[in-house]
Amino acid sequence: MSAKAASDVPKEQWAQVVEQKGGPVVYKKIPVAEPGPDEVLINIKYSGVCHTDLHAMNGDWPLPVKLPLVGGHEGAGVVVARGSLVKDIEIGDYAGIKWLNGSCMSCVYCRQSAESVCPSPALSGYTVDGSFQQYAIGKAAHVARIPKDCDLAAVAPILCAGLTVYKALKESNAKPGMHVAIVGAGGGLGSFALQYAKAMGLHTIAIDGGEDKKQVCLELGATTFVDFATSKNIVADVKKASGDGLGPDAVILLAVSEKPFQQASEYVRSKGTIVCVGLPGNAFIKAPVFDTVVREIVIKGSYVGNRQDTAEAIDFFRRGLIKAPYKVVPLSTLQDVYDLMIKGQISGRYIVDTAN
Amino acid sequence: MSAKAASDVPKEQWAQVVEQKGGPVVYKKIPVAEPGPDEVLINIKYSGVCHTDLHAMNGDWPLPVKLPLVGGHEGAGVVVARGSLVKDIEIGDYAGIKWLNGSCMSCVYCRQSAESVCPSPALSGYTVDGSFQQYAIGKAAHVARIPKDCDLAAVAPILCAGLTVYKALKESNAKPGMHVAIVGAGGGLGSFALQYAKAMGLHTIAIDGGEDKKQVCLELGATTFVDFATSKNIVADVKKASGDGLGPDAVILLAVSEKPFQQASEYVRSKGTIVCVGLPGNAFIKAPVFDTVVREIVIKGSYVGNRQDTAEAIDFFRRGLIKAPYKVVPLSTLQDVYDLMIKGQISGRYIVDTAN
Amino acid sequence: MSAKAASDVPKEQWAQVVEQKGGPVVYKKIPVAEPGPDEVLINIKYSGVCHTDLHAMNGDWPLPVKLPLVGGHEGAGVVVARGSLVKDIEIGDYAGIKWLNGSCMSCVYCRQSAESVCPSPALSGYTVDGSFQQYAIGKAAHVARIPKDCDLAAVAPILCAGLTVYKALKESNAKPGMHVAIVGAGGGLGSFALQYAKAMGLHTIAIDGGEDKKQVCLELGATTFVDFATSKNIVADVKKASGDGLGPDAVILLAVSEKPFQQASEYVRSKGTIVCVGLPGNAFIKAPVFDTVVREIVIKGSYVGNRQDTAEAIDFFRRGLIKAPYKVVPLSTLQDVYDLMIKGQISGRYIVDTAN
Amino acid sequence: MSAKAASDVPKEQWAQVVEQKGGPVVYKKIPVAEPGPDEVLINIKYSGVCHTDLHAMNGDWPLPVKLPLVGGHEGAGVVVARGSLVKDIEIGDYAGIKWLNGSCMSCVYCRQSAESVCPSPALSGYTVDGSFQQYAIGKAAHVARIPKDCDLAAVAPILCAGLTVYKALKESNAKPGMHVAIVGAGGGLGSFALQYAKAMGLHTIAIDGGEDKKQVCLELGATTFVDFATSKNIVADVKKASGDGLGPDAVILLAVSEKPFQQASEYVRSKGTIVCVGLPGNAFIKAPVFDTVVREIVIKGSYVGNRQDTAEAIDFFRRGLIKAPYKVVPLSTLQDVYDLMIKGQISGRYIVDTAN
Repeated sequence: MSAKAASDVPKEQWAQVVEQKGGPVVYKKIPVAEPGPDEVLINIKYSGVCHTDLHAMNGDWPLPVKLPLVGGHEGAGVVVARGSLVKDIEIGDYAGIKWLNGSCMSCVYCRQSAESVCPSPALSGYTVDGSFQQYAIGKAAHVARIPKDCDLAAVAPILCAGLTVYKALKESNAKPGMHVAIVGAGGGLGSFALQYAKAMGLHTIAIDGGEDKKQVCLELGATTFVDFATSKNIVADVKKASGDGLGPDAVILLAVSEKPFQQASEYVRSKGTIVCVGLPGNAFIKAPVFDTVVREIVIKGSYVGNRQDTAEAIDFFRRGLIKAPYKVVPLSTLQDVYDLMIKGQISGRYIVDTAN
Repeated sequence: MSAKAASDVPKEQWAQVVEQKGGPVVYKKIPVAEPGPDEVLINIKYSGVCHTDLHAMNGDWPLPVKLPLVGGHEGAGVVVARGSLVKDIEIGDYAGIKWLNGSCMSCVYCRQSAESVCPSPALSGYTVDGSFQQYAIGKAAHVARIPKDCDLAAVAPILCAGLTVYKALKESNAKPGMHVAIVGAGGGLGSFALQYAKAMGLHTIAIDGGEDKKQVCLELGATTFVDFATSKNIVADVKKASGDGLGPDAVILLAVSEKPFQQASEYVRSKGTIVCVGLPGNAFIKAPVFDTVVREIVIKGSYVGNRQDTAEAIDFFRRGLIKAPYKVVPLSTLQDVYDLMIKGQISGRYIVDTAN
Repeated sequence: MSAKAASDVPKEQWAQVVEQKGGPVVYKKIPVAEPGPDEVLINIKYSGVCHTDLHAMNGDWPLPVKLPLVGGHEGAGVVVARGSLVKDIEIGDYAGIKWLNGSCMSCVYCRQSAESVCPSPALSGYTVDGSFQQYAIGKAAHVARIPKDCDLAAVAPILCAGLTVYKALKESNAKPGMHVAIVGAGGGLGSFALQYAKAMGLHTIAIDGGEDKKQVCLELGATTFVDFATSKNIVADVKKASGDGLGPDAVILLAVSEKPFQQASEYVRSKGTIVCVGLPGNAFIKAPVFDTVVREIVIKGSYVGNRQDTAEAIDFFRRGLIKAPYKVVPLSTLQDVYDLMIKGQISGRYIVDTAN
Repeated sequence: MSAKAASDVPKEQWAQVVEQKGGPVVYKKIPVAEPGPDEVLINIKYSGVCHTDLHAMNGDWPLPVKLPLVGGHEGAGVVVARGSLVKDIEIGDYAGIKWLNGSCMSCVYCRQSAESVCPSPALSGYTVDGSFQQYAIGKAAHVARIPKDCDLAAVAPILCAGLTVYKALKESNAKPGMHVAIVGAGGGLGSFALQYAKAMGLHTIAIDGGEDKKQVCLELGATTFVDFATSKNIVADVKKASGDGLGPDAVILLAVSEKPFQQASEYVRSKGTIVCVGLPGNAFIKAPVFDTVVREIVIKGSYVGNRQDTAEAIDFFRRGLIKAPYKVVPLSTLQDVYDLMIKGQISGRYIVDTAN
């Protein structure tokens, strides 16, 4: 079987390129890459913009970044070429670039479907070029398979934000009928978490601050809302919201800072699970040994989903169960989105349209 | 079915009684209690002495203690009376008093065999009288069933120390063939942990300090020994001992202080589990969020085993797979044992003989 | 703590008694029993009638039956007395009698929350008197805790039919988003199964015969209906309904006869699970070894739920997610219900009202 | 990264070729293949001979076979060339050809490490050429990684026989300390099963016929031997051997014929698991519905291990825990081995040496 390509793949394309640490991104023409034997080339239509892209541009994470770099890891588009080994993806299929562009597929982790902790990952928009370009390369084993009935703009944020919270919910071991507290429920990840949790038969205790957040959370299906800004006793309020008063079975910590973590270890049910998802710079998890032991609490980190999680997260979306507000802007205006992000003026997801 | 009793149960017995917080224990005659409908009376022959007994006497844990108190929660003996509801224990059977004397058997935890976190437990030698007396009461549902071919002195420490590490090993999710690091492997709990781990088909990386500890650990079946006193790089040494160099699949922390914990979070394999067992006063678990998330590390507390764990831990002992050095002394000399404990001069387990 | 009772418990009561194998039931006055130390007395208000009750009267199962016998194992009512050991149930609480009236609570199964396979069970309306009387005894550990906001007539069938299918769904290992085929979806058990499955985030492929059944199934939330009476290729139709065409992840066989079983082993997904629930007299499971091995199929029997399953099944009901048509008739007319049952003229659940 | 090869790979090699259905095998020179980008070329040193090879030659399984065919799927050797995508295997590394030569790596099963049920497998010595030649091709993702301290002749049978029983033991869910009955314990698969089970901390009840088999089984570590030829009541004898008399927690059926299966369903512990491994032509699993349901028995098929199982099975071997008698004969005499096999005169494993 030999490689295949659509007839109209250009030699050059528009892309946003980080040319030096700290940015800014430069909107320019660059060559279109050719897929290797185990790769596909995707004509990216839309790509979500994530805080991680800003970290990549600023190089402030403890992982070295490729330079020059095309960022982006929530890209959805159409397959236009494939390598000779690729048999199960056709030219014209929808596919997506996610954070994990590729992994070794042979190490002790990949052999057990734990690609997220493969020691040799290729990270989209970080160690390899990502989706802020019109044509992006992905390892065929890893690119997300997107059904044809999905809207490519709307599905883009599922590839990172949606997938991350879906996997965290799976890691929480919460079963249908159980209670899950979502800390930071009113934010971008939180909005997805509330919807996935509901679709999985879970009760959610949304924790966030302010009347606006409350409205959003309840509309997205939260069973209860606890306002950390006005609650006089968050621990007591969360436990009260858990049905039998013993506390939620699981907690999804979308922003791990010390105080919410410590509270979580107090209100989580005995034998319950606290899942840490957020990646603040130099934060620490801190829990009292006595209580952790005597109440047999589980604390676990959850990173990105694996290939199967991706398929499942997209399937929930496809069935219309997951929706999130987003705003489409031209790829050429990416730096403006970063500027808003730096000022903390983002609400909802920004999606760049690679057509202009 | 009515209650039954052996013909020779006396009205009075010798016991060691804590009459005031801080002790000392007073060796005196007290009445023998009568079992309720769901209880048994056990003629305790031998009882292990545990650091927890000292905590109970000193009242320095964040849980209120009964006073006056008969301590002890590793008592092995012979059933001499049973309540009317008890059908599956006969007079003359061997049985043991463990830390969890009873639990409600109906709450959401007890319904799921997680009696250790029942909010209404009866704790032997802590909230109810324990095994430092000749005749002790236990809830029939909870007393350990001890086969007749077990030595009652040797089995006593299994009822707490052995059970605790066995349960921690189960909680670690380590499967046969995997590597488990035991931090504090040369101590009392550690000696049991090494033997249980070996019997469960696990490789052990024993971590402790000094040549003596090394000898003990290797004799008990440790695959490798890492000396924290002389190692120039514990994290590197432990990872190297894990076969493929990626670190042990699980870590059992028998003494949780901050430094060993932080090291464990560095050398544990990605997706590995750190099980906290020890109960230092006011210690904290502290782990970097970034690494915990990106490497998907699991941290969990493990308290005492449930009834099934007890049966299993005793069965491993019965088959001759678990041995530990111990020294039998008269019950009347219990305060001397506490004095040695306070001075840190204990090595191996002390077992009190209730006959004198 | 001593025993307690409401002031108005009578000495005599109305009951339906099987006095000889084969029946009929005799409506007569019999004494009210007194609860033992670990028991409660429930003033039964409503009790569902199940095919098992007919088997008990006819004595045609390979398990010996008590005689004379008060049948019934779906009884919901109010606690009017409790034994001295019972601490967590108050006089006036709602409670239910289920098939498993009691179990030993100490065997290797009970210790692991698998009470359903305890070798010494007390079976309501089979080996001990059940709920076809105004006042029934239940072991406190086992009686269902029913929240006060539940309708006692409507909740009755949850105690057997609902619980049984809920447990079977849990045993199927199907996770939210997966597909489950329900064989016999239009019947009594099936109606509950469709609703529980939906509440658990599962897709259901309802299999039954006829346009009426189809309507019922789709109204209860079935994702697809396959009509075994008109389908030209059930295996192909069920696989087609499973999303990716590889077959459902699990199959719940509510009526195990040879043909549906064989079909299930053909359409179930590789590594999928077939759960057998129904109890036809002398039927056999028969599956080809080659396919079972090469496709790694799992076949498992599922009996009744444990105490925790009961609490969960009732909680789904309490939240309004589970509804089923039922018809209330006087306890005095129980034989008429049996007569309809024998003629196969029952549709929906019959509930007897013990007040007349 | 480009493809690499050792300098001395010949153009031609000796092989045993099935040229027509039913055989015989023809020993002749054929070309050496070149590895594709994701493949390696292994200089096979030794290859085990398995009953499946005979099935492949005879074409009597319900799966079509390649023709002409080089059989063999237990081949151990040295990597002499690799494709351009292969990064984690070096020229000179030891590697093995197993039954699953390759799989799609992208389907719903491969994504979840269940490669054994991939609908598009490449089967060594069945749908692609196998290890009865001097140079065999394997997909890099799938070839077994064999440590340099392993004997290549001795390790060969681990690649199929060892792996198969190891996986079956994992599928049985038996935990250290539990009892597993091995039906056919004295045969080739059985010998491996007894040793793996012991290394995994399990008790084994070996079931086979005759004094010779008994000796072999006890030497390999069986806890008990039950002789089906002389036992007056196999069900009772097996239950008696299970410690508490309730039956083994799991049964590994290495030869599934109807009688042993039916017995297994009678003696297996309630909630226990029967794992079917053997692949007799047209046999059926047959179990009574009533007992399967009421005792909640699990019956499951187990095929070959996945890539991680392979690594683990080899690691147990490497540590010296798994040994089995074998006889090395020249590759040129393969037909003679088949002839013995047809006559049922094989005992122990035959290994062909490709050097002559």
